[in-house]
Amino acid sequence: GVALPAQAETTTVKWRLASSFPKSLDTIYGGAEMLAKRVAELTDGQFEIRVFAGGELVPAFGVLDAVQQNTVECGHTASYYYYGKNKALALESTWPFGLNTRQMTGWVYGAGGMELLREMFAAYNIVHFPGGSTGAQMGGWFRKEIKSLADLDGLKIRIPGFGAEIFSQMGAVPQSLPGGEIYPALERGAIDAAEWTVPYDDEKLGFQKVAKYYYAPGWWEPGTHLVFYVNQAQWAALPPAYQAAFTAAAQEAHLQMLAAYDAKNPPALQRLLQNGAELRRFPDDVLLKAYAIAQQIYAEESAQNPTFKTLYDSMREFQKRSDAWWTVAESSMANFMQAVQRHK
Amino acid sequence: GVALPAQAETTTVKWRLASSFPKSLDTIYGGAEMLAKRVAELTDGQFEIRVFAGGELVPAFGVLDAVQQNTVECGHTASYYYYGKNKALALESTWPFGLNTRQMTGWVYGAGGMELLREMFAAYNIVHFPGGSTGAQMGGWFRKEIKSLADLDGLKIRIPGFGAEIFSQMGAVPQSLPGGEIYPALERGAIDAAEWTVPYDDEKLGFQKVAKYYYAPGWWEPGTHLVFYVNQAQWAALPPAYQAAFTAAAQEAHLQMLAAYDAKNPPALQRLLQNGAELRRFPDDVLLKAYAIAQQIYAEESAQNPTFKTLYDSMREFQKRSDAWWTVAESSMANFMQAVQRHK
Repeated sequence: GVALPAQAETTTVKWRLASSFPKSLDTIYGGAEMLAKRVAELTDGQFEIRVFAGGELVPAFGVLDAVQQNTVECGHTASYYYYGKNKALALESTWPFGLNTRQMTGWVYGAGGMELLREMFAAYNIVHFPGGSTGAQMGGWFRKEIKSLADLDGLKIRIPGFGAEIFSQMGAVPQSLPGGEIYPALERGAIDAAEWTVPYDDEKLGFQKVAKYYYAPGWWEPGTHLVFYVNQAQWAALPPAYQAAFTAAAQEAHLQMLAAYDAKNPPALQRLLQNGAELRRFPDDVLLKAYAIAQQIYAEESAQNPTFKTLYDSMREFQKRSDAWWTVAESSMANFMQAVQRHK
Repeated sequence: GVALPAQAETTTVKWRLASSFPKSLDTIYGGAEMLAKRVAELTDGQFEIRVFAGGELVPAFGVLDAVQQNTVECGHTASYYYYGKNKALALESTWPFGLNTRQMTGWVYGAGGMELLREMFAAYNIVHFPGGSTGAQMGGWFRKEIKSLADLDGLKIRIPGFGAEIFSQMGAVPQSLPGGEIYPALERGAIDAAEWTVPYDDEKLGFQKVAKYYYAPGWWEPGTHLVFYVNQAQWAALPPAYQAAFTAAAQEAHLQMLAAYDAKNPPALQRLLQNGAELRRFPDDVLLKAYAIAQQIYAEESAQNPTFKTLYDSMREFQKRSDAWWTVAESSMANFMQAVQRHK
């Protein structure tokens, strides 16, 4: 028991959480369920959070608005869905050639990122918490091989956000399609390619049957973070122990989602390859061109969007130093292990 | 408030936590302080954990014994310190050419590792929780360059555990020295090399002044996990909400330690290089020989130690599949980013 008896009887809190995600994305959707379960355990059931899947309470991409307007107390979503409101919001999730998952979490919790992001979200009446991660994503499914930049010309690819901007500047024709419409569109050739997430989730949609070339790396999602949003007034009204419960449970969910993906992706990739998927790496000219376009987009956005500039400069500086360290220990170890195991 | 009023007045719990670490290793030591702080917040101060530095209550390497014997309720340590009791214990921390940090956490929480480890620790009356991580460590400080395997002949190197066994089989002479004695021993040439941890911690000891060659990767510590130990009977006596508080706070501490190191190491490495450290990578013949010896040691230990075999087989299988996936997205992204930034 935690509180003085007088308080204990009065602090029953019931919240609804609007997820952007369908239950079929079980690893991501499960992050919100894990949060709710732990918060209940920590408070002997007195702080109850009910989780609703995307579309059940509010539209899947309406979570930011719903939390901002106090239609729901909290949500679980990805900030890059709100790229149309302010491109700076995408930086909280992931951005092309941005930080990897560990670097994101390191920047947020160890290098002042949390404070900068909280300042941005305050303008939306939101207190945010990192809410899980997928690790580096795949580059999606292609009906034909991409052998050079020229093969992107006129390519109809399902991709949102910054990735779409970059593909467009490389001559492709980005398309916007919800998850459920991708497979039939690929099957009938209405689109030539589609990005989704990582092997575990991609496998469920069966893309290898209609677009077998499976590209990597997913340079537009190098370390995707999901996020919990809480309405500011609701947050302020919570007793301190309940704030602590939500904070700790959110961090646990953040840790657990990555662990779950890191366990589920390797066997899923193995099965995909057994079932006809063919791995390909994007050609160097595509990667280099995409990188160059991305840098220009960030420079242009920084020139006109102070929030974007503040966040981007801080993340980019962190990334440069971090990548120099990564080369020394983490990557040199990883590259050795991958090489020595391939040759066995 | 969480409990029924009647319980709330009676469930005051006071625990002592014995850390193996000195306060000077602030990032690691801080993991236990973070746990204690969050547990207190989650219980409105009713569950109090007092943290004691290495040696204050029990010897630094006496934490397992102390928790097992209920001398203290809980501890914060590294399981490879108890390698002398059973080499299987080292697998919970890290092992030469073993899993990286994310893979360790993925195996523990996503692939049944937790259950296998809990079974091992039950024999010591201990319930364990992953308690932080350093990421891939460095390979230590050398007074002279290592250009090939032959340069290890007779080399006196401060290194414990499996790493010491492997260096010994490569012709070196491993030494056992506490942290505080390493610098003077290197300075007067009593030893030729010493491993410690990562740039942020190494920097504090000033090794670059007496052994400037800074080697990578630290193949004997590819993803070191720290650990919280709780006495089984003490654990069983906790109210469910307090168990939940300890569990959630331990996971938060686990996440936060890695984030802190990932933020602190890059600038520390930069400063070390400015102050005279010279980075070197272990030569391929050293890495390949060490890898081969390690595989033999694991095979021999597996043949005579069923606990070791159960854990090792599970981890190794996980690692092989995981490394195959890592190559595709995470490493190909990392290698591109490191290359493109070096050439800018």
